Amino acid sequence: MATKITVLGAGLMGSAIANCFVRRGYSVSAWNRTRERLAPLERIGIVAAPSVGAAISDSDVVFLIVSNYEVAGKLLEPIGAQLKGKVLVNGITGTAREARTFAAAARAQGATYLDASIMCFPVDIGTSGGMITYCGDESAWITHGPTLLELGGKSTYLGTDPALANIMDAAISGAFFNVALGGFLEAAAFGATAGLRASALAPIAIHVMELLGRILTEEAVQAIDHSRYGTDQATLDIYVEAVRRWRSEMLDAGQRSALMTANLHNLEVAQAAGHGQGSIYTQFLTASVDRRKS
Amino acid sequence: MATKITVLGAGLMGSAIANCFVRRGYSVSAWNRTRERLAPLERIGIVAAPSVGAAISDSDVVFLIVSNYEVAGKLLEPIGAQLKGKVLVNGITGTAREARTFAAAARAQGATYLDASIMCFPVDIGTSGGMITYCGDESAWITHGPTLLELGGKSTYLGTDPALANIMDAAISGAFFNVALGGFLEAAAFGATAGLRASALAPIAIHVMELLGRILTEEAVQAIDHSRYGTDQATLDIYVEAVRRWRSEMLDAGQRSALMTANLHNLEVAQAAGHGQGSIYTQFLTASVDRRKS
Repeated sequence: MATKITVLGAGLMGSAIANCFVRRGYSVSAWNRTRERLAPLERIGIVAAPSVGAAISDSDVVFLIVSNYEVAGKLLEPIGAQLKGKVLVNGITGTAREARTFAAAARAQGATYLDASIMCFPVDIGTSGGMITYCGDESAWITHGPTLLELGGKSTYLGTDPALANIMDAAISGAFFNVALGGFLEAAAFGATAGLRASALAPIAIHVMELLGRILTEEAVQAIDHSRYGTDQATLDIYVEAVRRWRSEMLDAGQRSALMTANLHNLEVAQAAGHGQGSIYTQFLTASVDRRKS
Repeated sequence: MATKITVLGAGLMGSAIANCFVRRGYSVSAWNRTRERLAPLERIGIVAAPSVGAAISDSDVVFLIVSNYEVAGKLLEPIGAQLKGKVLVNGITGTAREARTFAAAARAQGATYLDASIMCFPVDIGTSGGMITYCGDESAWITHGPTLLELGGKSTYLGTDPALANIMDAAISGAFFNVALGGFLEAAAFGATAGLRASALAPIAIHVMELLGRILTEEAVQAIDHSRYGTDQATLDIYVEAVRRWRSEMLDAGQRSALMTANLHNLEVAQAAGHGQGSIYTQFLTASVDRRKS
């Protein structure tokens, strides 16, 4: 029997998800607080349910894609017992603690639980480039992974801890993406002091991101996952010197350079810990507070 | 008459450059401090010159690719007058001041001057993906740009100021690339506290870099170059909240989070300047020290 799917929440992302599933031949019902958003979904064969309880009544998989945990809690409270035997996929992004608490509540009702972090735009849903990370009950992933992979070809399962998707989101969207974007803005502001336009910087930034991708895959993963912190390329000491020179150029041009200053600090902490002759990836070893003096 | 090229310095990068030019049919001479490095170049038809003076004697373009300005100064001092009428392309990466000083010295000898920053690896030289940024005398770029573009299909000319290539390098290699790499290491260290491996993070980081590339081109350039700082997407206020939450998750996990802290600071400076309802790109407007309170 084909998997029956309910999508709770028909914003841009929820609508894209419901749309993708129905196009792939699944039986899909949907619910949304404001009913009007369901009309376009109804026209393509999705059952627009009058209540959350009606929406999920004969579903196997319930995909929750509302704005936050407060809204989600209010939605599911009255129909908790109905979740028994179903798979709840939680697409809300929050903290590690929120995901763990929510998983425990769903399991207490007899549901199996997957947490999901959506790492792409609504337009990417249903394409080979779409990416959603999942975590939680492995049995649910084994059964419904192929269905969930319809939403994005780059999607992956991270492990059983229901917090992993949120932790991955904080790491990638926060610590990596947002810092990289901030770095571009510091670069653009510094470039502007010499008359360089953002349109000149952007293609070069995109070019070096290809190099960065290569380096992450070929070098950083080797170093971190296999504890290989030696290098026959530039040592950490050499990077410290380069970053000092770049930062001093930026300061001379009147820039605040907060990210470059923090970057130098991270490098100097690793250097002070004795990693000067190691690779730039030794910063990984000194990133936590308790190990900063080790 | 075909352009005659001299390459001074036959390290990995200098050798790749000489190799590329000779394969494209140019007449190439080369010089290197340690003669042995010239042997493989000689075998493919490059003239291995016994001295710098002999190397450049009938060249149109002299490509200088030695390790630093001190070495370069000592090389060119005895043969300065021989540079008259030639184009000196300086591939040494240094500060804005070093490039301007060096350009003035070359011009005083009657040379025209281009400064170059090499934004790729030796293996990329001569390919469509190779990238070198140039700046300096426009007449030299007009005459020899097509020749220099043989070295890398993504190469560009930035403008007449001989410091622009070094400023672009500090902006892109320093403020952007190195900060982004540091951000990945903070992300990996945070992920590791929950058992996520770098091999799980790397493909997702590469995925979000594609999104970042799209955003830089479609949004950041529009905002910065055309002063369009409004948004119908997430406002700066919303990013401040998200970054506070991400950072607090990282701190709770025992991370130092220096880059995330600096990122939050940059966002808060923009917010304090009244840009809370604007886009995340308003950080560009508050990146310099003298404008931080405006």
